[in-house]
Amino acid sequence: MKIDPSLTPFFSPQGVAIIGASLDPTKLGYGLSRNLVQSGYRGAIHFINLKGGNLMGHPVYRHISETPDPVDLAVVLIPAQAIPAAIEDCAQRGIKALIIASGGFRETGSQGAALEDKCLDIARAYGVRLLGPNCIGLIDTHLPIDTTFLSPPGPTPGDVAFISHSGAICAAVIDWARGQGFGLSRMVSLGNQSDVTETDLLAPVAEDPYTRVITLYLEGVSDGRRFLEQAQAVTRQKPVVALKVGRYMSSQQAVASHTGALAGLESAYNAAFRRAGVIRAETTEELFDWARALAWCPLPKGRSVGVLTNAGGPGVTAIDALEAQGLNIANLSSGTEAALRDLLDPAASLKNPVDMLAAATPQQYAGCLQVLLDDAHVDSVMVILPPPPMHTAGGIAKAIIPVIYTADKPVIVALMGERLIQEAVEHFRAARIPEYRFPERAAEALAVLTQRAEYLTSSSEIQERSLQPFNDLNSVAVGSIISKYDSGGFISQEDAFDLMNAYGIPTVQPQLAQTAHQAADLAEEMGFPVAIKIASPQITHKSDVGGVLLYLQNSQEVENGFAKVIENSQAALPDADILGVLVQRMIPAGQDVIIGAIQDAQFGALVMFGSGGIEVEGLKDVQFELAPLSIKEAKQMLADTWAGKKLHGFRNIPPADQGAAIDVLLRLAQLACDYPQLAEIEINPLSVLEQGKGAFAVDVRVRLGG
Amino acid sequence: MKIDPSLTPFFSPQGVAIIGASLDPTKLGYGLSRNLVQSGYRGAIHFINLKGGNLMGHPVYRHISETPDPVDLAVVLIPAQAIPAAIEDCAQRGIKALIIASGGFRETGSQGAALEDKCLDIARAYGVRLLGPNCIGLIDTHLPIDTTFLSPPGPTPGDVAFISHSGAICAAVIDWARGQGFGLSRMVSLGNQSDVTETDLLAPVAEDPYTRVITLYLEGVSDGRRFLEQAQAVTRQKPVVALKVGRYMSSQQAVASHTGALAGLESAYNAAFRRAGVIRAETTEELFDWARALAWCPLPKGRSVGVLTNAGGPGVTAIDALEAQGLNIANLSSGTEAALRDLLDPAASLKNPVDMLAAATPQQYAGCLQVLLDDAHVDSVMVILPPPPMHTAGGIAKAIIPVIYTADKPVIVALMGERLIQEAVEHFRAARIPEYRFPERAAEALAVLTQRAEYLTSSSEIQERSLQPFNDLNSVAVGSIISKYDSGGFISQEDAFDLMNAYGIPTVQPQLAQTAHQAADLAEEMGFPVAIKIASPQITHKSDVGGVLLYLQNSQEVENGFAKVIENSQAALPDADILGVLVQRMIPAGQDVIIGAIQDAQFGALVMFGSGGIEVEGLKDVQFELAPLSIKEAKQMLADTWAGKKLHGFRNIPPADQGAAIDVLLRLAQLACDYPQLAEIEINPLSVLEQGKGAFAVDVRVRLGG
Repeated sequence: MKIDPSLTPFFSPQGVAIIGASLDPTKLGYGLSRNLVQSGYRGAIHFINLKGGNLMGHPVYRHISETPDPVDLAVVLIPAQAIPAAIEDCAQRGIKALIIASGGFRETGSQGAALEDKCLDIARAYGVRLLGPNCIGLIDTHLPIDTTFLSPPGPTPGDVAFISHSGAICAAVIDWARGQGFGLSRMVSLGNQSDVTETDLLAPVAEDPYTRVITLYLEGVSDGRRFLEQAQAVTRQKPVVALKVGRYMSSQQAVASHTGALAGLESAYNAAFRRAGVIRAETTEELFDWARALAWCPLPKGRSVGVLTNAGGPGVTAIDALEAQGLNIANLSSGTEAALRDLLDPAASLKNPVDMLAAATPQQYAGCLQVLLDDAHVDSVMVILPPPPMHTAGGIAKAIIPVIYTADKPVIVALMGERLIQEAVEHFRAARIPEYRFPERAAEALAVLTQRAEYLTSSSEIQERSLQPFNDLNSVAVGSIISKYDSGGFISQEDAFDLMNAYGIPTVQPQLAQTAHQAADLAEEMGFPVAIKIASPQITHKSDVGGVLLYLQNSQEVENGFAKVIENSQAALPDADILGVLVQRMIPAGQDVIIGAIQDAQFGALVMFGSGGIEVEGLKDVQFELAPLSIKEAKQMLADTWAGKKLHGFRNIPPADQGAAIDVLLRLAQLACDYPQLAEIEINPLSVLEQGKGAFAVDVRVRLGG
Repeated sequence: MKIDPSLTPFFSPQGVAIIGASLDPTKLGYGLSRNLVQSGYRGAIHFINLKGGNLMGHPVYRHISETPDPVDLAVVLIPAQAIPAAIEDCAQRGIKALIIASGGFRETGSQGAALEDKCLDIARAYGVRLLGPNCIGLIDTHLPIDTTFLSPPGPTPGDVAFISHSGAICAAVIDWARGQGFGLSRMVSLGNQSDVTETDLLAPVAEDPYTRVITLYLEGVSDGRRFLEQAQAVTRQKPVVALKVGRYMSSQQAVASHTGALAGLESAYNAAFRRAGVIRAETTEELFDWARALAWCPLPKGRSVGVLTNAGGPGVTAIDALEAQGLNIANLSSGTEAALRDLLDPAASLKNPVDMLAAATPQQYAGCLQVLLDDAHVDSVMVILPPPPMHTAGGIAKAIIPVIYTADKPVIVALMGERLIQEAVEHFRAARIPEYRFPERAAEALAVLTQRAEYLTSSSEIQERSLQPFNDLNSVAVGSIISKYDSGGFISQEDAFDLMNAYGIPTVQPQLAQTAHQAADLAEEMGFPVAIKIASPQITHKSDVGGVLLYLQNSQEVENGFAKVIENSQAALPDADILGVLVQRMIPAGQDVIIGAIQDAQFGALVMFGSGGIEVEGLKDVQFELAPLSIKEAKQMLADTWAGKKLHGFRNIPPADQGAAIDVLLRLAQLACDYPQLAEIEINPLSVLEQGKGAFAVDVRVRLGG
């Protein structure tokens, strides 16, 4: 990961100036000064306030220009109007990194937004980087430094980094983490992020050796593709968990296709997170439940979980929760059962979940846990600990911690209770062993560890994920079609089919013949059988006038048919302009699927695969991915939908030409990627014939962006 | 609710004897004695132990027969082998209610099960009721009484009752509730429930005036239909929340239909809980999160929620969470906005979520909350409280509690943090106002209150839920069809169609004609067009031999056709036995749905409605309900599936005859209910024609139970 050097002063400043430091303990400018001093920051500390004076043993300068060296970071908490000048003053003093804590900018309306833009212009002109405005600042518990004005105590040092679009959530998380028994490494509040964004900070925060997991509270991302690229680089090194909110707040884009209607705003985020290996949490508690497990546990080699309990009920609860998470209940090897039998009461249950019974001793807990960990069929273990009637939970914790410490498999503890388990909670937290209140949350944490392990395995197979190379894409044809249209809106169906053909997507495009001979030639080219249909702008209900003939088997039938449909049409509507006859290949019945693409405002081209036809929006059997696609990703889209599973064959549904469907999906993804002006493309249906017979776009709609 | 008087001694005993009381503080029999004495139980306390002596100021009798009056409940904790005699001794002493805490019964294997059966036989012979064996006993914090041996402290008095199939979970919940700030009213551990079951206890526990909500930890129910009936009676009075586990533990029943394959074991539980108004929690934390809200809050009149916050991020999180729960974000009335404007900083956001900004005072919190509660568009309010930078969370709690107290709408508090909100937590808990750690959990609690309110409204419309009366069901015909079969397995297709006809379900059943004239008569009866098909056991591929004619429009065509298909068949296969010709009505293309029924081992007849055809198991677009069905329930099954929504019409899919489909569903439910020996019935497809044209069973399969 390459770190932008202009961001370095934020995370390892030599000297920090607080502009707006205050001697009045009721002011936030006092809190800021206090936190910086009390954080134990070892660089130079400079306070600036027009009134001068002395604060916590440091002189208060009247102007930033008076500050002695070293100083390379300024934290600014003064009225918004004074900020532009302050940025300029800082730049002239040689300070190239500013944290602007003050509010009164974009969040207050258009005047504030103008002021914010002005600040950014000045900063850009001087090469100054801005964090904020309207932010809480940042904390590094290991450097250490605290540039916030939050009420003490600050966070406990730890290994979880937190980057947040909300300052209030930073304050809540710092306070809450203490009660949950985990510490933070770095915390950054982004505020209005006029300059530095969540994406900019991923690499610098990941670089921190104390950070073992990065958590994000996101209300969006500033640049979808850049986020994807940065996050992909980071997640190969360290896990990233994100809570993305605002799914119901943003207004829907205007869409004219099924693809657009089904995509919403979250499909692109889900696809981007999946591709980047970012784990998406649905709640704040999940975010940090999962972060603890990711920070503290080795990763499992597979999905099989051993459960160790001293009571039946919690064991059943655990099994339910693990199965609901898609994990497997490990089949214990016979050697394991024998070893457990030696350790336990004869009435104990030696099958998974292993129920040691209520009287289980600390030694039995430790011994059985070791036996489970030694079983090659067990990839991870959940230890369940309700208040034990005969022993203390604390005693059991002390007995099993050494076993967990030396294990190379993850062990998650489900502690049940409050007062009677408090000592155990403290032991586990001190040992950095994740504990959760009930088996359900513990199961989620194990599932996330598994997800992380599987991501690392798949991202290490990077060569397999290479994109499909196409040598037969006709850009000239696409360009000439697009250039025919001045403005947005749907392009003609003929052009839409031509667009498909230009990217090598087979269609059953109707073609116009003006003579019987031409019709026969076209039919020969397409292959029989064909259908012919009268082409006339005045005739919409073609079959009503005898203007359609189906299943014509040879040239002779086509030539005769040409004459017949023209005759029929002229008889029915003598005034109609007859342009000729459309010839269309008739394909056998196949499996109909939908393949579509839209341009997501944030992440660009997004493709969809799923159950098509007129019911597509009702069934919602669709899957989205960012374009372009690798073959592996395209296959996964098929595997994740019922439409795709059916292509593989299902009961008496025969298998279809999956390879052809994947080829169309890849080509459409490439087209959407190459031409962002194609706002929506939808093939519905794509008829996928039996194996080896191909897949054909039967209907295509393409809308150009405005 | 009628309470079984034989259960009264469990909940209001005049005197309690502990058989197996121990003077040794390391023994559970000591803990039992200690808990009973320390619970403050005001009736007579008697200890029994062969060794005699004196325990906590009470004499220890050597035998139950020596116990003086009053004594009507015994708690037994002695070796399993001695229990049968103890039951007999108790009965002879006039004690008709026993709690058997001892283990060593069914849970240990077949020998234990035999001993348990023996105990039950003795108890039944003497009219004695048993709780347990292998249970922890019961607690009533208000009577008060504690018959458990659990380590102190016992639960805080409160208003949440807990009935559990797991003793370990009882122990955990008692301990955990203290940390969560709620108390228990009654707690019962059921153990092996050889006699008294979860269903028996619903009414006695609900009757307790201190109990405001009943929570259940269930590993199953002992008698599905009785549970349904008891729970229905209880939930009209008091809310019931259940955590049902073991969904992955029980082995699947053997099934031969799509209906059976899709039902699994949980469909019946889900249907039963829904019908009984039992709220199903997925995790232990949800169980009690929801119980607190149900115990402490008034119910909302609608789904519109007002959100009051002092920061944007948590507001966005709340909106997401509320929308995900299917609740609405209230549209505040203009009067509300004006009133808020008077109270708040000009930069505050007056739209919902109302963001008072970080500096919001306790007075602003209280004032704005009152304004929101006064808005007729607001049915409930979520108050969000991250650690406030300028004020204390405790101060804000004190300011808003009086407003919440006097409100007739529910107010749920989302407190964010730990240390800085601790005082607020304590204020809210003391005031019995539900508080949760983040907006997501608060939103769930509001959704559950809404679900409860809607259930009460719908169950008060009880007359509307009356079943559909059928006067045209032909039981004689059904009986004679079933009696044709000696053993289980599929019945013939002809019988299956006849079964449908007997219950008034229209079919396109083929009927055999042996003469041309008979064929024409049958066709006249069915209505044209019809198809005719050769009937011969040797001819399976009927159309290959010219044995099928479609779309015959009148009697003449049928008579001619009759001769023709016989002639064709005889020509093709001269040796075939010709039974005649099958005549079948041809119906226009309709919407195909599946309607099925199976017999659930626990709850009896269960019906299914959904998307049919060969893809039914892939789409899983189905809904289950217990039979018989009310019209309202049948309509709801349609509303809950895509197949049902389509019958209503969707885009260019025309509406179909929903009434006819509902009629078939009701009739099939009635049939499955009336004849439990019909193990599986499946109509797939039922073709639902356009409005007014009916719905016809095109294919029917019926399997008789073994």
